[in-house]
Amino acid sequence: MNPPRPIAVLGGTGPEGFGLALRWTQAGETVIIGSRDPKRAQDAAGKIKQRVGTNAKISGSENTAACAEADLIVLTIPFEGHAALLKQLKPALRPGSIVIDATVPLAASVGGRATRTLGLWQGSAAQETAELLPREISVVAAFQNVGAELLNADGPIDCDVIVCSDDPAALQLTRALAAKIPGVRAIDGGKLENARILEQITALLISLNIRHKAHTGIRITGLPNA
Amino acid sequence: MNPPRPIAVLGGTGPEGFGLALRWTQAGETVIIGSRDPKRAQDAAGKIKQRVGTNAKISGSENTAACAEADLIVLTIPFEGHAALLKQLKPALRPGSIVIDATVPLAASVGGRATRTLGLWQGSAAQETAELLPREISVVAAFQNVGAELLNADGPIDCDVIVCSDDPAALQLTRALAAKIPGVRAIDGGKLENARILEQITALLISLNIRHKAHTGIRITGLPNA
Repeated sequence: MNPPRPIAVLGGTGPEGFGLALRWTQAGETVIIGSRDPKRAQDAAGKIKQRVGTNAKISGSENTAACAEADLIVLTIPFEGHAALLKQLKPALRPGSIVIDATVPLAASVGGRATRTLGLWQGSAAQETAELLPREISVVAAFQNVGAELLNADGPIDCDVIVCSDDPAALQLTRALAAKIPGVRAIDGGKLENARILEQITALLISLNIRHKAHTGIRITGLPNA
Repeated sequence: MNPPRPIAVLGGTGPEGFGLALRWTQAGETVIIGSRDPKRAQDAAGKIKQRVGTNAKISGSENTAACAEADLIVLTIPFEGHAALLKQLKPALRPGSIVIDATVPLAASVGGRATRTLGLWQGSAAQETAELLPREISVVAAFQNVGAELLNADGPIDCDVIVCSDDPAALQLTRALAAKIPGVRAIDGGKLENARILEQITALLISLNIRHKAHTGIRITGLPNA
């Protein structure tokens, strides 16, 4: 990839997106933080630059502008803004772009609990994304189960990232991106329809976090070459 | 517990139930294998006795008879027989019994895929069990994610068992039972309603098993004292 493919992290001012942007900036990637408010996006980018160093390739933009500059778009937005943002982004997405969806439809989005999910007609937030975007855009589900606290802390993360997509090339590219986070193992989780299970696991981990006062993650055991 | 509380494993002639019965017999528990066919149940018990040794406290009975002899009943039956068996068992269950449900509503039950689950009105097979049984019976969800191949092999199992129940005492007792399987860590997973996520994780693990030619399990990372 020459010049390097920038990664736009939409909702990157929130803890999950900020943590992912931080980790990828640390790994030398070119990252654009997207937010509704360009000023907040720039502030977040400034904080990452301060933490990573002056060579950090990090900037901040309004969500649609961030999207227009990137081929890799990561969605880390609360579910209540999910469909509206996708409709807004649609004209800005370049053909061949990859949208990596980390969104979890927590019931908290409609005033319920963060330990429960909403049932979506499409099966999952990631499949809703695939339905709302043109077919030329590859959708990948990943990063739902890597907690923000762990991403924003220092050191390696004891968590697997299961990656699901109907586009094998986009799936492999996302696995490579996940593996740039120290400690993370990126697992091929098959078709996008499996995203519904990844999204539910987040609700379980939140429940375990509350119950055990912990920052949990998951590991898959028994995989060969792992 | 004096005399020791027997554990009835219904559907114990199937690979999952057989594996659990084997492990608990190895741990010195008194186990009754239940099956529709008492002859098949006795044959399975004989195989376990052969493997564990003559001191093994294992026997085989028809499902309802096994249920009547035990206070701990473990359901390891295919989902298609789930509701019918519960209705059949109802009169045989002693008040104060604990029913541990390991059933997963795989779509394979209705001719679909083992990598997909059915949506149940109650939320999960375990919650269906709670609805079908009298309130005096405590229902626990556990063991969905421990693969039969691992249970039937020798050696410790690299897998956590997440245990969910609305009855804290039954939950703790089930955790103790799970911890008798070498390698297993038993985690308090909260209310029974969380069973739906455990059941979905099984479908994901089956999908990973097929994709990666493996016998997978899960571990929760980041828990204190673990």
